[in-house]
Amino acid sequence: MNKYVAELFGTFWLVLGGCGSAVLAASFPELGIGFVGVSLAFGLTVLTMAFAIGHISGCHLNPAVSIGLCVGGRFPSKELAPYIISQVLGGILGAGVLYLIASGKAGFELKTGFASNGFGAHSPGGYNLISVVVCEIVMTMMFLIIILGATDERAPKGFAPIAIGLGLTLIHLISIPVSNTSVNPARSTGVAIFVGDWALSQLWVFWLAPIVGAVLGALVYGFIQKDKS
Amino acid sequence: MNKYVAELFGTFWLVLGGCGSAVLAASFPELGIGFVGVSLAFGLTVLTMAFAIGHISGCHLNPAVSIGLCVGGRFPSKELAPYIISQVLGGILGAGVLYLIASGKAGFELKTGFASNGFGAHSPGGYNLISVVVCEIVMTMMFLIIILGATDERAPKGFAPIAIGLGLTLIHLISIPVSNTSVNPARSTGVAIFVGDWALSQLWVFWLAPIVGAVLGALVYGFIQKDKS
Amino acid sequence: MNKYVAELFGTFWLVLGGCGSAVLAASFPELGIGFVGVSLAFGLTVLTMAFAIGHISGCHLNPAVSIGLCVGGRFPSKELAPYIISQVLGGILGAGVLYLIASGKAGFELKTGFASNGFGAHSPGGYNLISVVVCEIVMTMMFLIIILGATDERAPKGFAPIAIGLGLTLIHLISIPVSNTSVNPARSTGVAIFVGDWALSQLWVFWLAPIVGAVLGALVYGFIQKDKS
Amino acid sequence: MNKYVAELFGTFWLVLGGCGSAVLAASFPELGIGFVGVSLAFGLTVLTMAFAIGHISGCHLNPAVSIGLCVGGRFPSKELAPYIISQVLGGILGAGVLYLIASGKAGFELKTGFASNGFGAHSPGGYNLISVVVCEIVMTMMFLIIILGATDERAPKGFAPIAIGLGLTLIHLISIPVSNTSVNPARSTGVAIFVGDWALSQLWVFWLAPIVGAVLGALVYGFIQKDKS
Repeated sequence: MNKYVAELFGTFWLVLGGCGSAVLAASFPELGIGFVGVSLAFGLTVLTMAFAIGHISGCHLNPAVSIGLCVGGRFPSKELAPYIISQVLGGILGAGVLYLIASGKAGFELKTGFASNGFGAHSPGGYNLISVVVCEIVMTMMFLIIILGATDERAPKGFAPIAIGLGLTLIHLISIPVSNTSVNPARSTGVAIFVGDWALSQLWVFWLAPIVGAVLGALVYGFIQKDKS
Repeated sequence: MNKYVAELFGTFWLVLGGCGSAVLAASFPELGIGFVGVSLAFGLTVLTMAFAIGHISGCHLNPAVSIGLCVGGRFPSKELAPYIISQVLGGILGAGVLYLIASGKAGFELKTGFASNGFGAHSPGGYNLISVVVCEIVMTMMFLIIILGATDERAPKGFAPIAIGLGLTLIHLISIPVSNTSVNPARSTGVAIFVGDWALSQLWVFWLAPIVGAVLGALVYGFIQKDKS
Repeated sequence: MNKYVAELFGTFWLVLGGCGSAVLAASFPELGIGFVGVSLAFGLTVLTMAFAIGHISGCHLNPAVSIGLCVGGRFPSKELAPYIISQVLGGILGAGVLYLIASGKAGFELKTGFASNGFGAHSPGGYNLISVVVCEIVMTMMFLIIILGATDERAPKGFAPIAIGLGLTLIHLISIPVSNTSVNPARSTGVAIFVGDWALSQLWVFWLAPIVGAVLGALVYGFIQKDKS
Repeated sequence: MNKYVAELFGTFWLVLGGCGSAVLAASFPELGIGFVGVSLAFGLTVLTMAFAIGHISGCHLNPAVSIGLCVGGRFPSKELAPYIISQVLGGILGAGVLYLIASGKAGFELKTGFASNGFGAHSPGGYNLISVVVCEIVMTMMFLIIILGATDERAPKGFAPIAIGLGLTLIHLISIPVSNTSVNPARSTGVAIFVGDWALSQLWVFWLAPIVGAVLGALVYGFIQKDKS
């Protein structure tokens, strides 16, 4: 039970911290944190939680990661459902607390996006569906290779939270302009529920593409690590 | 005795470094460091001191952290008073040296805020009291979960200063727009004493909310770590 | 075989991540990531891959690094050819996926450079050939000293990916204005093939200078580490 | 002998990397790296070299650090002279290579400062002599506390290069506006020799203040670490 609560709190932190850094600083163009700050924030939510609760739940915080780890033989499939439910609930809770904080400023509006993911007119840079799907698949694939590699028993001990957290920062540095970066269906769902409308109708992309990418990543790492046996 | 001096110097560094980075770079809009630079600076004061004096005093540098660690059973209550006094004195000393340096520039004024924390008209983004209180409570709660988790005996050894320092960076990336980020009554008190006026009259919020958050964080971590026994 | 695939995927990630961060964020002047973001991205591709595949292939991702390690006695010369071929193929593949993603935005043009390296009119800051050659040689020389030193058996264990990855970030912070930073022939080749024209005709510089620098770095480190014997 | 060459190369890297990042990016106001980028660059020169040559020479790269370590009982006084000479030579060599690269761009001028340190009219923010002296003393004092603490035998093993390198980043985030940040006489001397004029006539401050600060830091750490015995 306690590991599900850990996943819930961790995903709560990922959405509140990552999306929150973007939403709350959005009105400070000069001093604000830009894409670099948001990228750092997302990565540091995972880095901090991986050190804090990694020994409790493994700190997935992401349905695509749980599925990829399952395909890679590192996570039992019977745990998938409770993990994913905890992650999605945590993501919604994080978005809820963010809404509570953000709405305490005159003029706040959900309409500006609330850090949702999207394609076409709702991509930050106007990227089309194909670009967004390719990007999300490749980014999540590489994320899983980083996760599986950095937690491999032959990798240096203790450093995985740094590799994985800064890996998520890197993924945001690359792909915020394309899709606002999901690679995590729970993160996308948390904020989309508050925005509704287009964010909900485009949400399927940010479940499908990350999961496809995660499965590919697990297969690729399974191949390149072969001389282990 | 020497551990109290260590806490004093550490909190001195936190206020001089964190608030100093904000105050001194404030007049360089183009080349200045913005919220990302200030967030990094606050986090790195804790990262550097945790490596430097962690083995001497535990490197709390923060009354809310000392209280949270006490609730979590990691710190003896009889040490609370001398730690908190050392931290507040260190914070005031840090603000004092910052004042000495900053006032050596023509046109320097305390009126612009001196990196104080505030709500309403004194929140950087104009956030109201409720937003500020919720934000400070949640941020300090998560800070304590990071601290307790990263120093758990099951966490990787030696990495806690990185997790905790970058955790404080993350907290600033999220919440500078809301409250100018306290999560630390000693940090707020140090600069408020120099600003006086509104900074002093709003100071109660930045003692109350961080301490409530720290206690909540200790309780949450106590629950999710249960299978330790 | 699997280590060649690991090098291919790693160099794929280096080019997609490093060049991608520059190309995709280029149209966001205010929120974009600037040279600091691109520098971080390049460094983090190496940091993440070094933790993920360092135990499989050594994670060179760079023909100049493989050659330097060979000169330094850390890599067998018979592996040079397959490693370099895998790296160049990976670089081209990374540039290809980047092209696929980037072209899903109306108005995308290869003509703006696609993160290619160049001198003279094609140097970001208009630096001449001599500056670019000196800069690339010195940067790659220092990169090899960092790599050989951080993986020396007397260096702290496990930290090499951090030192090497952040070393590449540092090299970019210094030299993006001069040459757009290569220090890696596979990275330069990957994008130059798509740009053609001047990028291809200046490509010889970004094979020659990094390799000369890498050999020098191996010789310098060989000298300063002498009291090992 | 080889450790003196290591110090020379390390200080060469510190000046080329730190000052170079500032000088070369100076003409890119929009995409440039600002104070955050320069702060990162200085810190990463030390982080990378500490991992690369820490096991050879201890990686001081700074006369004030060597003197402070001597006062703290960690470095033999008979090594002071050759270390300081190597550091100053390395600093001048770094500035020389930077001059060679930077002058390959039309319109380059030494007059704009070449990243020299100064006070009054030559302080980036116009800070007077007293502010600059106080700032340099306090910053170097804290730098020595970080160095002595992070390399204390009770501190976590292997992490000192991260603490010390990011400590130097932090010091730059705070004090670039005040003095352009020295805390290192070899760094100041390297560039001042090329600028001549005011940079040379103000150079005494950047020998005196860092050395005073380093001695104070060694004395403070000596006091707070006492229960070791």
